[in-house]
Amino acid sequence: MDISTAYKDNNYKIHVAENILKSQLSEYTAQYDNVYYLIDEHVYGIYKNSKLSFIEAPLVVTGGESFKYASPLMHTMEELLAFGIKRNDLIVVIGGGATGDAGGFIASTILRGVDYIHVPTTLLAHDSAIGGKTAINSKHGKNLIGAFYRPKAVIYDLDFLKSLPSSEVLSGFGEVFKHAMIHSPELTEDLFQATKETIDLKTLTPFIIKGIETKMTIVIEDEHEKGSRKFLNLGHTLAHAIEYKYKIPHGQAVMLGIIASLYISNQVYQLEIALDYYVDYMKHHGYPVGLITDMDVDEMLELIKKDKKNHKSDYISYVLFKDENTLTVTDIKVSDLKMMLTKLKERI
Amino acid sequence: MDISTAYKDNNYKIHVAENILKSQLSEYTAQYDNVYYLIDEHVYGIYKNSKLSFIEAPLVVTGGESFKYASPLMHTMEELLAFGIKRNDLIVVIGGGATGDAGGFIASTILRGVDYIHVPTTLLAHDSAIGGKTAINSKHGKNLIGAFYRPKAVIYDLDFLKSLPSSEVLSGFGEVFKHAMIHSPELTEDLFQATKETIDLKTLTPFIIKGIETKMTIVIEDEHEKGSRKFLNLGHTLAHAIEYKYKIPHGQAVMLGIIASLYISNQVYQLEIALDYYVDYMKHHGYPVGLITDMDVDEMLELIKKDKKNHKSDYISYVLFKDENTLTVTDIKVSDLKMMLTKLKERI
Repeated sequence: MDISTAYKDNNYKIHVAENILKSQLSEYTAQYDNVYYLIDEHVYGIYKNSKLSFIEAPLVVTGGESFKYASPLMHTMEELLAFGIKRNDLIVVIGGGATGDAGGFIASTILRGVDYIHVPTTLLAHDSAIGGKTAINSKHGKNLIGAFYRPKAVIYDLDFLKSLPSSEVLSGFGEVFKHAMIHSPELTEDLFQATKETIDLKTLTPFIIKGIETKMTIVIEDEHEKGSRKFLNLGHTLAHAIEYKYKIPHGQAVMLGIIASLYISNQVYQLEIALDYYVDYMKHHGYPVGLITDMDVDEMLELIKKDKKNHKSDYISYVLFKDENTLTVTDIKVSDLKMMLTKLKERI
Repeated sequence: MDISTAYKDNNYKIHVAENILKSQLSEYTAQYDNVYYLIDEHVYGIYKNSKLSFIEAPLVVTGGESFKYASPLMHTMEELLAFGIKRNDLIVVIGGGATGDAGGFIASTILRGVDYIHVPTTLLAHDSAIGGKTAINSKHGKNLIGAFYRPKAVIYDLDFLKSLPSSEVLSGFGEVFKHAMIHSPELTEDLFQATKETIDLKTLTPFIIKGIETKMTIVIEDEHEKGSRKFLNLGHTLAHAIEYKYKIPHGQAVMLGIIASLYISNQVYQLEIALDYYVDYMKHHGYPVGLITDMDVDEMLELIKKDKKNHKSDYISYVLFKDENTLTVTDIKVSDLKMMLTKLKERI
């Protein structure tokens, strides 16, 4: 199915279906003088003789998160410039969230901006491909350098998901789960039921589409993250720190972060969200919940303080539920957060 | 005097006067939690005990064009992140055009964008500080990587110009001259008369302000360079190649480029602009007009082809006069351009 953005201008489509890459792309590429393909090396390795065999002379880029640093990024920029890229050429970025983040950043800055299309190849990228954020990493944290820059289209060919290792499915599912929670308690419960035993891609498709729509609604309302877009960071405050420290996939860390957010919501807003229901479910599916018990709270806090969403020193901006249907961003004193995370460690 | 932009939104002021830096800045800085100062090392060297003595703990950056590369840029980004820069902090960039370009690019990409104020310290920067273009250089040419990103204000304190070496005044004057030409034949003739003997900063002030206004009118009409903004590249096509090859200051190269543009306009549109009037004037003021005679046309063409303004292969987009009052962008065949530049070499 096609989902259209509803910004004031510069709208684009998100095409979601199986086996659509080649045909959808051709509807766009005809308008450009030249098309440059940036493809994650792992994805290209798997599909070069099948789905991606129609692509001549791709720029195969370092896989995953390792592409999101200044040095490989500049290398690819210089390659594109050496090929003589022009402002009315198109860049097609094929890969997961990291490839999309860095490829989008390249598109946003090369010649001060050329058009690009993102072709996400992971479940996790159903999240990062929506909303026009591009980014690379700093020594001091993830995604600290980037731009807001919209693609001309997102082509989400679900075929790519079939080759994902299970740890990647678990990771991407973290964001699907988060979007259901942001959407409503009802959708969350539906998802719980549909994935009680196993997380199966076929079952997930409607939830992926719902997740894209949920995210889309929010980012259109608040593109530059001044208000409601912050809700999308549900679970991400602790997740970024855990991910950085323990090098686990992003969406898996988000699931752990969600546990913390629920626990803190219960404390700050005197709610009674059934934490164990969530914890047991996550353990059942193999999320590394034990890392919460292992974490060094002071170390986590040092990392959390660097989060670019914080705007007051000594306070951490945290996305919480203030009741079961309503999210809010609450500034929590670092000392209070320390206390709560310490108790959570014991509680798990 | 204060010039206000007239975009649809996100407008800002350009304050132009002597000795205004400290007082004007204080009107802005109060709104921010933290202010980070990026200052060109040469400028800081000259003014640290006088005009800039009120600044505590500045980030002193590599001087001039050498700052506009990925490596020093990333170094400064990492420094800012190490200090814990937040989205509602302010970056103040003090330096010439290059410092402004790179400092603005840092502001546009760090945390996906923080506010910045540009304090230009050169005559040339009366040009680059207007229009919200930020940029760094690639191995393959100048300004090939960047963003469109508006500052919160430009504070142009004319005191800084007093310490400029004469080669820098000549360079900055190139853009003042270009803006007068874009404005009208009348203003151009006024400028000719006012600078017949010497180029004196006091005499220049009204022309600088007129130049800022001329540029402002154009960039507001066409921020993203789809139409009339291209006229601002008058003289720049050959200038970028000459500058790259002979390492002369930008505005000096622009003056040489203007000679080429006038010659080509005469050929393509059968005009009779008095080339010698311009050439003699430029020689009188010490512009290195002889480089036009020395240049290797094939080498220049190779560099010109990389210009990001070209959109068709085998054609070069050139800003020309089609009559004495009217500019136009004309696609010239590379072979025709070669012929004309070869004849120009002999003509000078």
